[in-house]
This record gives sequence, C-alpha cells and structure tokens, in this order.
Amino acid sequence: MPSSPIGPELQRLIDLLAKMPGLGPRSAKRAALYLLKKRGAVMEPLAFALDDAAKKVKACSICGNWDSIDPCAVCADATRDKSVLCVVQDVGDLWALERAGAHKGRYHVLGGLLSPLDGIGPDDLNIGRLIERAKEPETKEVVIALASTVDGQTTAHYLTEHLESASVAITRLSQGVPVGGELDHLDEGTLAAAMKTRREF
Amino acid sequence: MPSSPIGPELQRLIDLLAKMPGLGPRSAKRAALYLLKKRGAVMEPLAFALDDAAKKVKACSICGNWDSIDPCAVCADATRDKSVLCVVQDVGDLWALERAGAHKGRYHVLGGLLSPLDGIGPDDLNIGRLIERAKEPETKEVVIALASTVDGQTTAHYLTEHLESASVAITRLSQGVPVGGELDHLDEGTLAAAMKTRREF
Repeated sequence: MPSSPIGPELQRLIDLLAKMPGLGPRSAKRAALYLLKKRGAVMEPLAFALDDAAKKVKACSICGNWDSIDPCAVCADATRDKSVLCVVQDVGDLWALERAGAHKGRYHVLGGLLSPLDGIGPDDLNIGRLIERAKEPETKEVVIALASTVDGQTTAHYLTEHLESASVAITRLSQGVPVGGELDHLDEGTLAAAMKTRREF
Repeated sequence: MPSSPIGPELQRLIDLLAKMPGLGPRSAKRAALYLLKKRGAVMEPLAFALDDAAKKVKACSICGNWDSIDPCAVCADATRDKSVLCVVQDVGDLWALERAGAHKGRYHVLGGLLSPLDGIGPDDLNIGRLIERAKEPETKEVVIALASTVDGQTTAHYLTEHLESASVAITRLSQGVPVGGELDHLDEGTLAAAMKTRREF
C-alpha cells in the first residue's frame, strides 16, 4: 500500500477540524486546504484567537455567561432591568434572545438540562446560584426560557419547585405558532397548545 | 442600545471561524460554543495544530503537494511509478485520487486553473516546472486530470500545446467525469473508472 498523501501535521489538523459541529471528515479537508491558502489572513489569526479565547473567556461568576470580563458585560450593564431574571440552558440561547432583543433584564445560564438518562443531576448545573439570585430582594420575576423538550420541561418543573421559597413570579415563554410559520408544517402538539392558549385580537 | 453579549475575544474567534468553508455566521457561533466546552480536548490542540501546520506545511518543490517534508511523501515514495505524471488543479484533487487508489504514479499540482476572466494566466500557475518534469527522460506519460469545466478544459488545451515539445504521451481522464463536476466531490468508483479508461488527446 502506498504511503498516505497527507502528512501527520496536516492529518492532525483535519482530524481536529472534523470534530467541530457542522464539519465532517470531507469538509474538514476542504477547510484545511482553505486555511493553508489563507495562512496570514485566516489560519494564523485563527490559531491565535483560539488560544487567546481559550485562556481569557471564562464563565461569569454571577450568571454563567461566557466573557473575558467578570462580571460579564451583560451583568455589568447598569441599564439592564435587575428585576427580571431569564433562565436559559446555554450561552447560545442567551445570544439568541439578545439577537431578538427579546429580554432587557439579566440572565442565568444553567449550562445544560437535567437528564436522568445521561446522568445529569441538579449538582451538575448552575442551579444553587440561581436560587440565591432569585432570593435577592431586587429580583421580582424569573422567566424560565428552556426548550419544549422532555429534558427542558423536567428541568423547568424542578426549577419551579425549588424557586417556591423565593418570593418571585415564575413565568415561562408562551408556546404557539412561530412568527412566519405555516400551520401546515407545524406538529400537532404545537397547534393544540396554540389553540388552547388563543387570545383575543 | 444594550451592549453586545459577546465580548471582543469571542467575537473575533466567531468572525474567523465564519470565514471557513462550510461554516456560516450562525454555525460559527455554535462552533465557538462547542470549542469553549472542549477547551482541553479540542480548542487548545486545534490552536496548536493550526499554528504548527501553518509553520511546517509547505508546497513540495517538485510537485506542489502540501507536506511538512520536501520532497513530499508522494514524491519521496520510491515504489511509485516515475513514468506517469498526473496533473491536478489542487492538493484536494490529489487527495481525492489517492483516496480512490486511482493513480500509482507521481503528481503535479498546478495550484489553480487558467482563467482569463479572473486574471489568472500561465505565470500564476505551476506550469513551467511541469514542462521541465515532462521533459525528464523517465517521464513517459502526462495524465491531465482537470475538471470538466470551461477553465479546466481551457487549461488542459493550453497544457497539451505546451507539452508537445516533450516526447510524452498526453492523456486525459475518460468521460465519466460528469460535465461541470469537481474531482473532489466525485465518488471513488467513478474516479477509478475514469483513470482506467484515460485516452490520448
């Protein structure tokens, strides 16, 4: 058998790129070739940015958001509403809500969902700090913005029980038809929920 | 307007990831979050692998393949057939032919295709060295394995004209390569068949 045409340094790079979500083995090769063509403009800056972010970006000690400052920029923003705390599964969900301009208060990032099947229990998530924050006098409302999945709803149920000791309103995102969504393509559960919680114009 | 929830180090990382083929702005964010969760296992090794490959991987001075040794592993492999030289557009095409086991000889990587519209002329490609190699006494055949696109065929035509002075057989991959198809995306069977039925110009 002839030797591989791909040397060890390049093969290691391809193997690591292939681990990223959205890149498979073949697109990892394409990405490696692209990077080698753009050494100065992309490859070397990317190596530095990865190393720099790996060293500097930490979880915020208040909310769990990822930032290079602690408290993070969201927690440090004095213009944000301190009375409403929005609980999300992950930093990506925080970004999605910010992109939508959907929430002007603070956040709390759990870092996952309760999942007995995967062995993820309350101690594996950022829940203790959430209860503390909910009990702070400035907190009036906790919005539980978790996915409508089994694990999401299990986690939401657990949180509502354990937040009872804090005197706050506990709310959740409403369920319904997505904006721009066609009824024909929606699952029955969503349609039934949207009908049940219908509102007057 | 509230400040961005994404700090500068993280934003720079996302912007660079988004430049890679196969990743858009949204999947770059997902990739950044994934990497931050896998700092030790993926993110830091990837930073090192990028830096290492950027420093060590160079174009082979004989064929243009990318490797950390020069001559590259393919050129240095004494078991390969020195009489057949396969001309490809890019290193990705070399990998594709190797993956298919379609060619047991040497390669010559042009580094692109002639493209008058994009201002890419013969001097921008690794053509001079190809003519030299074709004139070496051990070379008996040059297989032109370029895409069935306008630029690919223009380049093939230019090469056959300029290889006339070398006393070698000039062949091309047989039809079977889909018109407009790129080598890198082809299945191994088609590539192997096309190589087996290569014909003289």
